[in-house]
Amino acid sequence: MTRVEIPEDSLFGLANLSYGVFSAPGASPRAGVRVADSVVDLTVVDPVFATSSLNPFMAQGHARWVEVRERILDLVAGEIPDAAVHPVDSVTMHMPFEVADYVDFYASEHHASNLGRLFRPDSEPLMPNWKHLPVGYHGRAGTVVPSGTGIVRPTGQRKGEDVPTFGESRRLDIEAEVGFVVGTPSPLGSAVGVDDFDERVFGVVLVNDWSARDIQAWEYVPLGPFLGKSFATSISPWVVPLLALEAARVATPPQDPEPLPYLREKNPWGLDLSMEIAWNGQVVSRPPYREMYWSPAQMLAHMTVNGASSRTGDLFASGTVSGPDKDQRGAFIELTWGGKEPVAVNGEPRTFLEDGDEVTISATAPGPSGTRIGFGEVTGRILPAR
Amino acid sequence: MTRVEIPEDSLFGLANLSYGVFSAPGASPRAGVRVADSVVDLTVVDPVFATSSLNPFMAQGHARWVEVRERILDLVAGEIPDAAVHPVDSVTMHMPFEVADYVDFYASEHHASNLGRLFRPDSEPLMPNWKHLPVGYHGRAGTVVPSGTGIVRPTGQRKGEDVPTFGESRRLDIEAEVGFVVGTPSPLGSAVGVDDFDERVFGVVLVNDWSARDIQAWEYVPLGPFLGKSFATSISPWVVPLLALEAARVATPPQDPEPLPYLREKNPWGLDLSMEIAWNGQVVSRPPYREMYWSPAQMLAHMTVNGASSRTGDLFASGTVSGPDKDQRGAFIELTWGGKEPVAVNGEPRTFLEDGDEVTISATAPGPSGTRIGFGEVTGRILPAR
Repeated sequence: MTRVEIPEDSLFGLANLSYGVFSAPGASPRAGVRVADSVVDLTVVDPVFATSSLNPFMAQGHARWVEVRERILDLVAGEIPDAAVHPVDSVTMHMPFEVADYVDFYASEHHASNLGRLFRPDSEPLMPNWKHLPVGYHGRAGTVVPSGTGIVRPTGQRKGEDVPTFGESRRLDIEAEVGFVVGTPSPLGSAVGVDDFDERVFGVVLVNDWSARDIQAWEYVPLGPFLGKSFATSISPWVVPLLALEAARVATPPQDPEPLPYLREKNPWGLDLSMEIAWNGQVVSRPPYREMYWSPAQMLAHMTVNGASSRTGDLFASGTVSGPDKDQRGAFIELTWGGKEPVAVNGEPRTFLEDGDEVTISATAPGPSGTRIGFGEVTGRILPAR
Repeated sequence: MTRVEIPEDSLFGLANLSYGVFSAPGASPRAGVRVADSVVDLTVVDPVFATSSLNPFMAQGHARWVEVRERILDLVAGEIPDAAVHPVDSVTMHMPFEVADYVDFYASEHHASNLGRLFRPDSEPLMPNWKHLPVGYHGRAGTVVPSGTGIVRPTGQRKGEDVPTFGESRRLDIEAEVGFVVGTPSPLGSAVGVDDFDERVFGVVLVNDWSARDIQAWEYVPLGPFLGKSFATSISPWVVPLLALEAARVATPPQDPEPLPYLREKNPWGLDLSMEIAWNGQVVSRPPYREMYWSPAQMLAHMTVNGASSRTGDLFASGTVSGPDKDQRGAFIELTWGGKEPVAVNGEPRTFLEDGDEVTISATAPGPSGTRIGFGEVTGRILPAR
């Protein structure tokens, strides 16, 4: 039997207990919990974890999430069978869940305003609908990939003068986002109430919504982004349970006009996540999630108000997290103002992504009693176009 | 043993052999083939059909589709075990496949021009990108439902004067479309060539992309349609194999400007489907699929040109099929010109859908030797808002 030592300042202490899917050398993928620098095999807790996806467990619902979290806490605070403990560096992390539908919102007022100015310089930056509803759209679930997956530079039709040009994207960008994973499904023809968020949503991941701006700019009117986004969306391997984020809850910024009743939260689900974006190892931005105008509870309520069902494994992301300051912007098109104001990365002036570049997004949030909860990171390196 | 009698004018003769998933009373769902007015249980042909989804068979690839089609032809042309034959009226039809990603295109020039005039009366009806690429977007895979599912009228934020109004949609509409189902997956980072369409796509279904125009009009700028579409998309229960549609192939209309090389087909995949839309039993429109500007092979090539993977069960739909004439329009917003020109349905002037209305879309296509191939129908009735 083994005891996992947890340093006092660990981001993966007993208040966190994030879930992932891992494989040890020679073993099949299964679910595990992150404790300090170890992964603990959860098949010793419950047979539902003996699969390559968290979906079966997430589908069991909120009461089970609470109960199993207690059992995991008991396990990892005590003696654990040796064979169930692996150094995190010795295992391979996989997609933690099967993505059902993927929706991407646009919930940062700073990001939406910046993008409006860049994409539509002759119009009001925010559309008339923006403060009435969380604007969102469906993305490609099949190209959500785990952190570490190489990102092949996409090819396609790019915005030109009168006619498009064709070739590899020259304006390849990131979007630093936070994603929410549905556990308990909701049936067709019913809406999820804005205060039922924590009954439905199992946990949180970090998202990099890679974006080819030249492809997007040409294609997106009138039906929205498509190939400029669909080549890859990366997520972090550890799903932080919503149950670990009580101390991170904050009010959203003031919402004016007052939202319609179905979007009014009794206890807001703003979240005080501190995010960092590292470009080839250098931190270039620190987006504050607490600045997001719409909360994830409002996103889920809106997404289902028309009676759309939701499924276990649905992933909905916040949209780019950008704060009011320049060094808080979550996309390089904003950070470099359309490529016109390069930023220094390891001494070089940089705008969009070059082949070989690596981007890593990480985050932490307040935990109980002054501790911090880690989200790990989502990382990816740009590979040359094929 | 039984022999299935096939009337000479049957739309489900030996040249068709469409696949579906059915359950006989008291039996579990499994795959079957439609022959005249019977369903033949395909578990007598191959164990891959002993599941509630065509995905495992579709994933086996083109050579297997050809081989199994020959074996099915041998079976149904001869004597069949009694227990494997069911009258089609005695069985329940289910979703024929599990939808991976759902993409909706916008490939009819007539429809796109009409909608442009209706939604953006002050601009050019066609966007500058429209003749350069098949415009499309991702829809909600989780709300694709089988024909016959009741459609609950959606509720949401509707376009108002300055601020939105909230309530049930008053401009509920249909979109008559044709959907294409991917069988053989393609990996991340590679593109499907425009001439590889028939290696990849297994078959064809009819699609009704129900649309709430008042919700859509308020939400869709700048990220595209979302809740105005995501409450339900209905598909027909029979997947017509692409192998049955050789005689239906036609050239697409002339494409000017010439498409970029990745969109140039050697042998075009235009399709001569004749569609019918019945509103409460009365045929109100006959959209001609052969008028579609972009072919489904061009759609798949475009959808993957950026390196996006495709999966078994991906469904991509054509967008509304509308011809040049008024009685060939595939959506009621076009047919009634935004509700200003009602059509007579059983003697009543009608614009958008009322509770209790039923819409049925059906289609046929040329088969070999003067026969016709049936697609069956996709039908749905409007239920009151909850």
